[in-house]
Amino acid sequence: MASESGKLWGGRFAGSVDPTMDKFNSSIAYDRHLWNVDLQGSKAYSRGLEKAGLLTKAEMQQILQGLDKVAEEWAQGIFKLYPNDEDIHTANERRLKELIGEAAGKLHTGRSRNDQVVTDLRLWMRQTCSKLSTFLKVLIEAMVDRAEAECEVLFPGYTHLQRAQPIRWSHWILSHAVALTRDLERLKEVQKRINVLPLGSGAIAGNPLGVDREFLCAELNFGAITLNSMDATSERDFVAEFLFWASLCMTHLSRMAEDLILYGTKEFNFVQLSDAYSTGSSLMPQKKNPDSLELIRSKAGRVFGRCAGLLMTLKGLPSTYNKDLQEDKEAVFEVSDTMTAVLQVATGVISTLQIHRENMAQALSPDMLATDLAYYLVRKGMPFRQAHEASGKAVVVAEMKGVALNQLSLQELQTVSPLFSSDVNLVWDYSHSVEQYTALGGTAQSSVEWQISQVRALLQM
Amino acid sequence: MASESGKLWGGRFAGSVDPTMDKFNSSIAYDRHLWNVDLQGSKAYSRGLEKAGLLTKAEMQQILQGLDKVAEEWAQGIFKLYPNDEDIHTANERRLKELIGEAAGKLHTGRSRNDQVVTDLRLWMRQTCSKLSTFLKVLIEAMVDRAEAECEVLFPGYTHLQRAQPIRWSHWILSHAVALTRDLERLKEVQKRINVLPLGSGAIAGNPLGVDREFLCAELNFGAITLNSMDATSERDFVAEFLFWASLCMTHLSRMAEDLILYGTKEFNFVQLSDAYSTGSSLMPQKKNPDSLELIRSKAGRVFGRCAGLLMTLKGLPSTYNKDLQEDKEAVFEVSDTMTAVLQVATGVISTLQIHRENMAQALSPDMLATDLAYYLVRKGMPFRQAHEASGKAVVVAEMKGVALNQLSLQELQTVSPLFSSDVNLVWDYSHSVEQYTALGGTAQSSVEWQISQVRALLQM
Amino acid sequence: MASESGKLWGGRFAGSVDPTMDKFNSSIAYDRHLWNVDLQGSKAYSRGLEKAGLLTKAEMQQILQGLDKVAEEWAQGIFKLYPNDEDIHTANERRLKELIGEAAGKLHTGRSRNDQVVTDLRLWMRQTCSKLSTFLKVLIEAMVDRAEAECEVLFPGYTHLQRAQPIRWSHWILSHAVALTRDLERLKEVQKRINVLPLGSGAIAGNPLGVDREFLCAELNFGAITLNSMDATSERDFVAEFLFWASLCMTHLSRMAEDLILYGTKEFNFVQLSDAYSTGSSLMPQKKNPDSLELIRSKAGRVFGRCAGLLMTLKGLPSTYNKDLQEDKEAVFEVSDTMTAVLQVATGVISTLQIHRENMAQALSPDMLATDLAYYLVRKGMPFRQAHEASGKAVVVAEMKGVALNQLSLQELQTVSPLFSSDVNLVWDYSHSVEQYTALGGTAQSSVEWQISQVRALLQM
Amino acid sequence: MASESGKLWGGRFAGSVDPTMDKFNSSIAYDRHLWNVDLQGSKAYSRGLEKAGLLTKAEMQQILQGLDKVAEEWAQGIFKLYPNDEDIHTANERRLKELIGEAAGKLHTGRSRNDQVVTDLRLWMRQTCSKLSTFLKVLIEAMVDRAEAECEVLFPGYTHLQRAQPIRWSHWILSHAVALTRDLERLKEVQKRINVLPLGSGAIAGNPLGVDREFLCAELNFGAITLNSMDATSERDFVAEFLFWASLCMTHLSRMAEDLILYGTKEFNFVQLSDAYSTGSSLMPQKKNPDSLELIRSKAGRVFGRCAGLLMTLKGLPSTYNKDLQEDKEAVFEVSDTMTAVLQVATGVISTLQIHRENMAQALSPDMLATDLAYYLVRKGMPFRQAHEASGKAVVVAEMKGVALNQLSLQELQTVSPLFSSDVNLVWDYSHSVEQYTALGGTAQSSVEWQISQVRALLQM
Repeated sequence: MASESGKLWGGRFAGSVDPTMDKFNSSIAYDRHLWNVDLQGSKAYSRGLEKAGLLTKAEMQQILQGLDKVAEEWAQGIFKLYPNDEDIHTANERRLKELIGEAAGKLHTGRSRNDQVVTDLRLWMRQTCSKLSTFLKVLIEAMVDRAEAECEVLFPGYTHLQRAQPIRWSHWILSHAVALTRDLERLKEVQKRINVLPLGSGAIAGNPLGVDREFLCAELNFGAITLNSMDATSERDFVAEFLFWASLCMTHLSRMAEDLILYGTKEFNFVQLSDAYSTGSSLMPQKKNPDSLELIRSKAGRVFGRCAGLLMTLKGLPSTYNKDLQEDKEAVFEVSDTMTAVLQVATGVISTLQIHRENMAQALSPDMLATDLAYYLVRKGMPFRQAHEASGKAVVVAEMKGVALNQLSLQELQTVSPLFSSDVNLVWDYSHSVEQYTALGGTAQSSVEWQISQVRALLQM
Repeated sequence: MASESGKLWGGRFAGSVDPTMDKFNSSIAYDRHLWNVDLQGSKAYSRGLEKAGLLTKAEMQQILQGLDKVAEEWAQGIFKLYPNDEDIHTANERRLKELIGEAAGKLHTGRSRNDQVVTDLRLWMRQTCSKLSTFLKVLIEAMVDRAEAECEVLFPGYTHLQRAQPIRWSHWILSHAVALTRDLERLKEVQKRINVLPLGSGAIAGNPLGVDREFLCAELNFGAITLNSMDATSERDFVAEFLFWASLCMTHLSRMAEDLILYGTKEFNFVQLSDAYSTGSSLMPQKKNPDSLELIRSKAGRVFGRCAGLLMTLKGLPSTYNKDLQEDKEAVFEVSDTMTAVLQVATGVISTLQIHRENMAQALSPDMLATDLAYYLVRKGMPFRQAHEASGKAVVVAEMKGVALNQLSLQELQTVSPLFSSDVNLVWDYSHSVEQYTALGGTAQSSVEWQISQVRALLQM
Repeated sequence: MASESGKLWGGRFAGSVDPTMDKFNSSIAYDRHLWNVDLQGSKAYSRGLEKAGLLTKAEMQQILQGLDKVAEEWAQGIFKLYPNDEDIHTANERRLKELIGEAAGKLHTGRSRNDQVVTDLRLWMRQTCSKLSTFLKVLIEAMVDRAEAECEVLFPGYTHLQRAQPIRWSHWILSHAVALTRDLERLKEVQKRINVLPLGSGAIAGNPLGVDREFLCAELNFGAITLNSMDATSERDFVAEFLFWASLCMTHLSRMAEDLILYGTKEFNFVQLSDAYSTGSSLMPQKKNPDSLELIRSKAGRVFGRCAGLLMTLKGLPSTYNKDLQEDKEAVFEVSDTMTAVLQVATGVISTLQIHRENMAQALSPDMLATDLAYYLVRKGMPFRQAHEASGKAVVVAEMKGVALNQLSLQELQTVSPLFSSDVNLVWDYSHSVEQYTALGGTAQSSVEWQISQVRALLQM
Repeated sequence: MASESGKLWGGRFAGSVDPTMDKFNSSIAYDRHLWNVDLQGSKAYSRGLEKAGLLTKAEMQQILQGLDKVAEEWAQGIFKLYPNDEDIHTANERRLKELIGEAAGKLHTGRSRNDQVVTDLRLWMRQTCSKLSTFLKVLIEAMVDRAEAECEVLFPGYTHLQRAQPIRWSHWILSHAVALTRDLERLKEVQKRINVLPLGSGAIAGNPLGVDREFLCAELNFGAITLNSMDATSERDFVAEFLFWASLCMTHLSRMAEDLILYGTKEFNFVQLSDAYSTGSSLMPQKKNPDSLELIRSKAGRVFGRCAGLLMTLKGLPSTYNKDLQEDKEAVFEVSDTMTAVLQVATGVISTLQIHRENMAQALSPDMLATDLAYYLVRKGMPFRQAHEASGKAVVVAEMKGVALNQLSLQELQTVSPLFSSDVNLVWDYSHSVEQYTALGGTAQSSVEWQISQVRALLQM
């Protein structure tokens, strides 16, 4: 029968403990990742206590030095966890007490694990989001660089996976890069809401000892303080938002991965993954599989699962802190790790991808110009609906004759509409086709260059 | 082309169309909600075509008047749908043609349903979000007004559903109001991303006819134009974000509902729902059930289900438009309706709720002041950890004696710590207790008033 | 201010009602689908009351006839709903009272809406699942018939979307059919758990009036009765299971749809959808899009969203009936409708699909026989790992020479391994290749025929 | 192989492998849990190869002994992983080769990692499900034992969290136990579908070397073999089913946890958690928090998140094996661990819970007998609807008089209905009340005993 005396809340308990329950309840296996931010938070808090007159300068110094020593032990990998260290807060404070004695017992004055843990998590996520933001920018930059370098390459644009219209390869790259810029924008917003300080909220009612929360906010470089102590200790909006941010970002990457997996099939054969991002088969010697892209695609499920899990945990929860909230951290850690890996691998894939220009060119076919043929008639004055129908008839005529659309003679075209004349030949030039799409956002070179400059400007912000 | 007649299932597929498929494919049953925004979009687009020289002024006038006539028919409920009207775009254009003849065929020049439908949806959501923003503000205002009016009421604050510390009832109200202000802030961000114009993106490659997208943007009062035509026609981030926004907001409301359901039980008995938001039992005559709150709590599931569904639909989808995206609209419509009802009902519940002050007061008990007792010792110079332990011992002593914590004599307290003196009596005053929590965000009156002013300021933004 | 007197629980309420709340609370808009099963349940219950001596035979007759009359009105579409009819139970009983007078007031004796509604829902789902089971069998049959008819067609089998090994087209069809047989098996299990009678559980405590639940069970043809009245009125496992059943089934269909969308691209060009299941583009005259398959793929998201929504609603709900459970019905109705449409459309697609045998044949390439080449060496005594490596070397040699794998001369092969001799030629025959895979479940003809017979046997069960 | 050195992002990709990608791709960090089942599968497979003539008896013996040696190393914790061991299959085979030399290279003959890994996973899950089934039974038994022992205890039954009718405490326990018996039943069905052998399916096309799959099935004690090799290697229904099984089971436990958390509040005060399953507060000395129950409630979210994640990963995946499927294992491992802990902790909680009988008794109030009062009138011949209304009027009369319902005099009751006579006194006896609910599934003692026997019978199956 274990004595609970080593635990922070142990004063009152007499009964025994179930070891399965102990392990079930303990979070040290994962919240040890917070060691550094926990110490940071404690350092700021001890300064706040000193300012409020609850610590003498000497006590504060003693605590600060003790915390630095604890940090050193973690950094050197020599911090020793004890079985009773149920979470990182307990572990750090226990060690502090060993190092500096009773003064350590003053550090938690007016603080609760409820405001401490959420402060730690926000500090940790602030760092992580900053790192993820950088990885995301690097990925977008790699895409934009590639779009700029390969702007002259044309290939089929698909809708419904059916060949639709000729587009620039760069236009395709940018379509995914532009989606990722929205993720960058959203991440900034999430970061803003992460960067709000809950410390000084206590367990529920606030802080009664004159601790200056604006001072703590400045010390820890937060952007603002939370407004209500009950909400501050129990809301996990910033976690839910982060998990959703990652989910939506992964959805984008899953779509890009899907495209590239298709483009890398023997049938499309537009791109080839670098060996570094492919693997072979244990059975089939000729295989080279796009494992990197498949893993990226699959992680969209995993990440969203964490988002779904947290929201279900939050649903209908009584307000203020409940232990249910302990579920937040593993979700955050796993998703952060996943995003870190995914963004780096995606950058590697994009950067090292080979493209098969000749296959891309060969995949363009005259029927993809049927829309342009309709526009030709529109420019000659035919209402679009008639032009669309006329072009459709030309497609049918070509199909029945078993020839490509551009193989129809002028006379044949004129049976469809008398508006056709010899200048229709220009329609069959793919380069000419894409250059028509000059409206902003279109696939003309000028518009692609505009997109590149727009995205680059967003990366500066 | 295979003959189907020889197969046992062939009979049904003799014609070119399967009626089940037709219905499966058709969206008119729900996208008719877009009639008005579809007509608005078309009016702007026809002006854009005129500016680009693709319509004469006269043709444009004819189209504009025709579209107004169509709008009138919808508004009067006399628009007649035909079986072939598979979606609202088809229906409106078909009717326009009936009204004005061939000129109608020019309206779709350079436009695709791909850019048309997403423009319509953005216009519709812009209106809806504006409405939801108002409903949300009204709810928050009702909460803040109530918090201001009942600021003097104290009751138990709970963590882990165990009585924790005395707090102001207003502090509880504000804890939920503050959560909703984050929803308001997030909604603004979603609105910003909804308010981006995709029109002029065509099906995939853009617009080749000189249509000025900035002009369209100004005509339709959008904040910006989309950057890439492939992305513009197939991204549904703004839908996913809206659904997640609603999910997180519902999570907040589910937690508030849970609290109020508990507070309304016979056992807590702090609040009583107005009859208008309760219902009875078909079997048990004495029952009065908080159906309104239970429905609010439950809708968190429904709304999140729509969010989960859309993200799953988007996962791994090849880029650009695929028919899968048709799933977006029903999700948006259902969630908009749900949020509209929930926000109004929540406002009604909060506004008409009765509180039982005497029960609230009676539920406060001296053991909830154990933390304050520890702070008493802290103020006398004892390190918090020792004070926490000492206060815990006092709790045990009182429990063993079978008396309330405040019934311990000074002598008994002094067996726990010699620091106790006669001024300990002040600790047992609940009003004195809450007034200690003056740090910003705490439950002291000054801090509650600060919260009210902060939330009111956010409502002005 | 409405009087509530028309509502089943109206006796006690004095206050007013908020019309938004009324609509929010009302379920008649959708639970009217239950009209028939509600009447069935009531007929059985009135027989149970008569057996228990709570109704005279004459009263029972009067009620039965009245209920039949109500049924007639619904069937003829002349049942008139009143504004106060908040749900189908209220509506039917109200009408019964109008038709037969006070005796109607005895029908609800010992019954609660809590056991009534869940009985109704189980009756409704029993019918629906039976229908869905039939639709599912028809789909599987269509697939098996096709697999049998086209057993000689070979085409590439893919893993990681890379060409892997030659397989029979039928083998591909059966891979999806076999997945659907598991759905059939699971559906049977769900049906078994749906088919359990809760009637006689009252609101919570059970039935105190001697109603014989086994008699009701027999009357309504249920398989068993529920064991505990509190659980019976508030568990929705059978709904969750049904929604998950549908979700997993849709996942299967989404994967089949994905395959067929790919096989229908210009690049793969293995299959062509019937016109009945394709649609055109409003902009691009040459397009023919696989809308049916895209919609099937997308519905996996919608259906799972409903499953996710219900589980979230159930999470943490206090036991017994809470109004939250009202969310169950719309989920069930929508998913039932979706599954009904999807299964029929899928059957149509599969039945009318054209295959391009020549393209399938041409897509087979010698490198897909590299595994067989390794097996050739294994049969000559080389350990598989060496054989795999040797075959890999042959692939590289062929790539470097720029020839197909089967163009390597015997001498060239022998530089890789001296075990190669002239009988290696047989390896290059695709028909010979597939015929090697005779282990049960493989792609040899005998094994495919075995699969067909196995699946047909499952359909008989 | 492309040189990367010329690109600005090329520095990192100079080698053939990106270390981030390597780690991203590797599964050894978690699939090492499969070491034992991987070796079991390999032993059976080597026997199958011998039977097919692909191994000599001596080679087989050598392999079997080698595999046993590898197992020994794992069991003793001395198996050494190498950086190149990307998964458990590679690691085990690599070690085998070190131990026995070239013969090891024959083990993989005709096998692919695609059929190997899914065989391993099924073996592992078979063990785990068997263990979980036992834990679940132990929990149900603990509940039934308790229900039997405390059958005479009455307390309020709630619907909508409002006091509804008196019930037996055992009836409440059994309501949750009965729900768990459905989980037991479902688990059996999942186990049946897990217990199907995919080995012998190769990578996609099957096995061409005469391996007898029925022999392998018998060797590994599976219930059946998979029907189609393409499906066998890529379907993860059994994983999805397991995750959903756990999700639904957790939903049940979350509802039981919610009830117990409420019953353990000061306000309800029906139960007290053992100290072993409670924890204290770092701030508030008087607190004792039901952390065990909160964690159980919260895990419903986590577990369902894994289910949601997997289904999203599967959605729209091209058929056969894709690397996306690698996501299955971590989900299974985490959910298995969670369920193992949750079921044990729940058993501990239920077994050690104290109940406060006197508080339970005092919480019963006469208004909870209003339904019985209505039944009293029904027994006197009044139609239920009138009786319900009359009882409701009595409730109102009592409320207006400010007395309990059972304090109304006979005369006062007779103003509501002349059918009341002196025997109405019996209605106010709670024990008499519950004993009326004798219909199967009700709260009378006989019915509760019937439930106990039914549940015990289910545990035997």
